[in-house]
Amino acid sequence: MRVSRREFGRLGAMGLAARMLPSVGLAQGGEKKVGYCVIGLGTIADHFMRGVLASSNSKITGLVSGHRDKAERVAAQYGVPTSSIYSYEDMDKFRDNKAIDAVYVALPNSMHAEYTIRSAKAGKHVLCEKPMSTTVKEAEDMIAACKAANVKLMIAYRLHYEPTHLKAVKLIRDGALGRVEVINGAFGFDAAPGAWRLNKTLAGGGSLFDVGIYVLNASRYLTGEEPVGFTGTVSTVDQDGRFATVEENVTWTTKFPSGALCAGSCTYGAQMPGYFKVFGSKGTMTMEPGFNYDGMRLRVNAPGLTLDEANTEKDPMQFTREADHFSECVLGNKRPKSSGEEGLRDMKYIVEIYGAAGVRL
Amino acid sequence: MRVSRREFGRLGAMGLAARMLPSVGLAQGGEKKVGYCVIGLGTIADHFMRGVLASSNSKITGLVSGHRDKAERVAAQYGVPTSSIYSYEDMDKFRDNKAIDAVYVALPNSMHAEYTIRSAKAGKHVLCEKPMSTTVKEAEDMIAACKAANVKLMIAYRLHYEPTHLKAVKLIRDGALGRVEVINGAFGFDAAPGAWRLNKTLAGGGSLFDVGIYVLNASRYLTGEEPVGFTGTVSTVDQDGRFATVEENVTWTTKFPSGALCAGSCTYGAQMPGYFKVFGSKGTMTMEPGFNYDGMRLRVNAPGLTLDEANTEKDPMQFTREADHFSECVLGNKRPKSSGEEGLRDMKYIVEIYGAAGVRL
Repeated sequence: MRVSRREFGRLGAMGLAARMLPSVGLAQGGEKKVGYCVIGLGTIADHFMRGVLASSNSKITGLVSGHRDKAERVAAQYGVPTSSIYSYEDMDKFRDNKAIDAVYVALPNSMHAEYTIRSAKAGKHVLCEKPMSTTVKEAEDMIAACKAANVKLMIAYRLHYEPTHLKAVKLIRDGALGRVEVINGAFGFDAAPGAWRLNKTLAGGGSLFDVGIYVLNASRYLTGEEPVGFTGTVSTVDQDGRFATVEENVTWTTKFPSGALCAGSCTYGAQMPGYFKVFGSKGTMTMEPGFNYDGMRLRVNAPGLTLDEANTEKDPMQFTREADHFSECVLGNKRPKSSGEEGLRDMKYIVEIYGAAGVRL
Repeated sequence: MRVSRREFGRLGAMGLAARMLPSVGLAQGGEKKVGYCVIGLGTIADHFMRGVLASSNSKITGLVSGHRDKAERVAAQYGVPTSSIYSYEDMDKFRDNKAIDAVYVALPNSMHAEYTIRSAKAGKHVLCEKPMSTTVKEAEDMIAACKAANVKLMIAYRLHYEPTHLKAVKLIRDGALGRVEVINGAFGFDAAPGAWRLNKTLAGGGSLFDVGIYVLNASRYLTGEEPVGFTGTVSTVDQDGRFATVEENVTWTTKFPSGALCAGSCTYGAQMPGYFKVFGSKGTMTMEPGFNYDGMRLRVNAPGLTLDEANTEKDPMQFTREADHFSECVLGNKRPKSSGEEGLRDMKYIVEIYGAAGVRL
């Protein structure tokens, strides 16, 4: 009997999956599901919680919010007892809540470090949204705190677990495109006035932190290399008050040891549907849509390989896969693929790109 | 009676167009066609000469080549008398050839300046391929020589006359995309070993001179602005001997006074199908194919405007339009849209980008 991942998720929700496919993430844990306390109940948390509904090895068991009313509504929706709702102030009490194994940090960037470190000190594994932090120092402190507490730390790079991206990476590693010469990529959106992302104190910086990071990170997993050189340019076109503390647009170039180059772009001032293109010595690859919550479409033109396929899985399946992976790591004592160190690397590169553009963070 | 441009071209070849549509480039010249002497009989010259066949106001009346046999074959094909075939050495004699009004300089980049200046001194108008030259000084000398000789100088930016590009520009000027935030673009190909393009002495530099210039130039006509800041990165991935004197890959960023940014890429080491994307505050535009000899496809997503249209004209129609325009300028004593000054600007920017990348030309 073949069971698709989606069907498996539904079966899991009915309590059937564990008996049918005990080897998937549950072998070491039996019927155990990793219980997540979600810290911050914004948009991305909603995606995550809906994703967890379809996960075979994850469940929502706690909430941290500054809005008790909202938290109670969400708790009812996900079967979380009101006793597992915390405020930001008393969150540390969840140390004694056995139903909470891990946290999902879905707060503004500037709060990632504090809430990761407090969670680690409370003995909880940490799945933290990207960007990992607002500074390299914070990222290093987060890694150290999780290490000291002997808890897992994963940065929520959802596309590290997305099958179309994984296929793109495998094709490149298998040589389908030959040597990677140049990568292009972009991602952005038109940010609403007043969004926390536009507040440097909360966000750390502008669009590179939030959306450019997808292109930056992709250029690394597509090449399989760490960049060694950067240029960057920032600008603000829209003088409408939104960009008082962060820049609107960033374009940058990165150079990898092989000589592969990437030209990246991001914005908070335009719909910029995410995409990337890889130009190799033997063939080309386009992923467009490339960074959305679903609908990835991969096209390849290479000798003997013409590909045009889209992932038909719907949002929030990327979050299901992400939760699945971290829960597998927690249950099986494995290192997450998108580790704290992975997040730290991007933080260092982001600082380099802004530095090249003359922006002091 | 409506006559398409293509039909007009055919009619022109039959001698009918002038009577039907005397206002198009022929009003001042009557039945006169501008006679072109093609200098250099490589691939691009072949496109041009085939394009001229469909032009209503242009014809091939002379050839300059180092290969007499080849020149005689081509002369027979285009009805050029053998007396109008010249070698590079005796080319200047065409001063007295009344059938030659203008030249089309289709030589390696390093020879553009010499042959433009010699042609101007012989009293011939000059249509010179891009890149205009290999140095800013040469470009300035070319402009000065044509001015002194009172002849027209046009740089063969074929896409300045391509209807889909013109439509893209008009849509942006009319505000269809709002304010331009970011442009992405790329163009390149896998250069054959031994090509003159790979010889810095002949080419001036690498892929930015030859193919990156399309993206650079497009970023200027799409924004309608002149760039004020540059970054650049160059690399060579393929250590196969082709890139001993020029780089293989270039990525760069440009900043425009409005704050619009462009991230550009080019290569001599991969098939890099030309494209550009414009991300505006209100909508997005993609031209893909974007820089080919035909098949331009323009897609726009903006409020109230969803567009997906391709130019079905076939190569060499871009060259027909280019020749039409220059001949109109010659016949009507008008300034070419893609003037020498336009070419000079790109030369300055190319030098800036290479400089930013640490490359001394």
